Amino acid sequence: MTPRRRRIPDATVARLPVYLQVLVEQADLGVDNISSEGLAELAGVNAAKVRKDLSYLGSYGTRGVGYEVAYLVYQIRRELGLDHDWPVVIIGAGNLGQALAGYGGFHDRGFDVVGIVDVDPDKVGIRLGDGDDAVEVRPVSELPRIVARSGVSIGVVATPPSAAQQAAEQLVAAGITSVLNFAPVVLNVPVGVTVRKVDLAVELQILSYHEQRRLSAAAPSGSTLRAVRP
Amino acid sequence: MTPRRRRIPDATVARLPVYLQVLVEQADLGVDNISSEGLAELAGVNAAKVRKDLSYLGSYGTRGVGYEVAYLVYQIRRELGLDHDWPVVIIGAGNLGQALAGYGGFHDRGFDVVGIVDVDPDKVGIRLGDGDDAVEVRPVSELPRIVARSGVSIGVVATPPSAAQQAAEQLVAAGITSVLNFAPVVLNVPVGVTVRKVDLAVELQILSYHEQRRLSAAAPSGSTLRAVRP
Repeated sequence: MTPRRRRIPDATVARLPVYLQVLVEQADLGVDNISSEGLAELAGVNAAKVRKDLSYLGSYGTRGVGYEVAYLVYQIRRELGLDHDWPVVIIGAGNLGQALAGYGGFHDRGFDVVGIVDVDPDKVGIRLGDGDDAVEVRPVSELPRIVARSGVSIGVVATPPSAAQQAAEQLVAAGITSVLNFAPVVLNVPVGVTVRKVDLAVELQILSYHEQRRLSAAAPSGSTLRAVRP
Repeated sequence: MTPRRRRIPDATVARLPVYLQVLVEQADLGVDNISSEGLAELAGVNAAKVRKDLSYLGSYGTRGVGYEVAYLVYQIRRELGLDHDWPVVIIGAGNLGQALAGYGGFHDRGFDVVGIVDVDPDKVGIRLGDGDDAVEVRPVSELPRIVARSGVSIGVVATPPSAAQQAAEQLVAAGITSVLNFAPVVLNVPVGVTVRKVDLAVELQILSYHEQRRLSAAAPSGSTLRAVRP
């Protein structure tokens, strides 16, 4: 394997999981090769960008054949660090934390929830999930032990907004270097800690754009739908 | 006002909520004007793309001054159809559905959860949220009535994967034209129905890329503390 530790642009990194999802679906459908145009359409980007993004992986496709799906899956997974599993801890065992602990889409992608903690004594002891994958809600005081024991570097904030900053600080103090934040607030973390914020409303906003267009199309003369400038 | 019902590229539509989030944060911080470079950095895209995206809204900024934050917020909200509230229904009242029904980030952005339904009789009657925003879990059979009563066009699938396709069909049969899918499966819907899939693992995959890089950087010299900075 050649060295490939150069830096990939953040925007490309953000698209790699989308390509990966499309490619895995295509592989499941029995597709062996895919053109940049085909991948672009399924991923919702343009073909030139797909080719540019994949060139960072050293993947250029073959004229008239395209990219080999299985190899591209392998390359993207390797680049994203998905060629091995990642242990994850969740802080906050409310509905969202419990939903995330049981979310099949994490385990399927190599993210194992090895611990979930909460400040609420009533939540401590709740068992989530089945069999080998089950985890029990533990007190926040056990966070450092859980992180050390399983070598966890990724933590998920699933607390209410008002508790999120403190939760992030507890994750960082326990040794976490990557934080996935579901609370609708901005977190302040030390330099060297990566934060990604999941905004569940973003996709709804994209849908409302399409609904807005539908309404406009249905009411061509109904200029009452047109916003008035302040 | 000039007509602006031209089609905006999907990739631009997908970035508008990200710009909006950044701009609202800046407005809250008291920032009146922002350059395309400033907005680009905060949104994680390049400045040329920001300028191009905003040009679809008819917004070009002023040389040396940039864009007026408040007006840009207004323009993006209008374009996304966020100048009025959207009623939303959720199908599936497990942990995820309950978490979404209580998710502050929806209400803050003008998405009101007006109904949540479940096939499980044990879940029917559970009250979620407080005061005026509270909703009660209702049986799936009431979906058409809820949709008609509140003029709902956006539905959220928060069921287990095995129930998601049927749930989507029930939403569509009830009159829903936009579906937000949280189940890690691909949904088949009729032409004319828009589906957006939320993949909660995508952000974890982006974090694992950064963790992977950290490990690679730390490994050669064994300086495992490199990522830790005060």
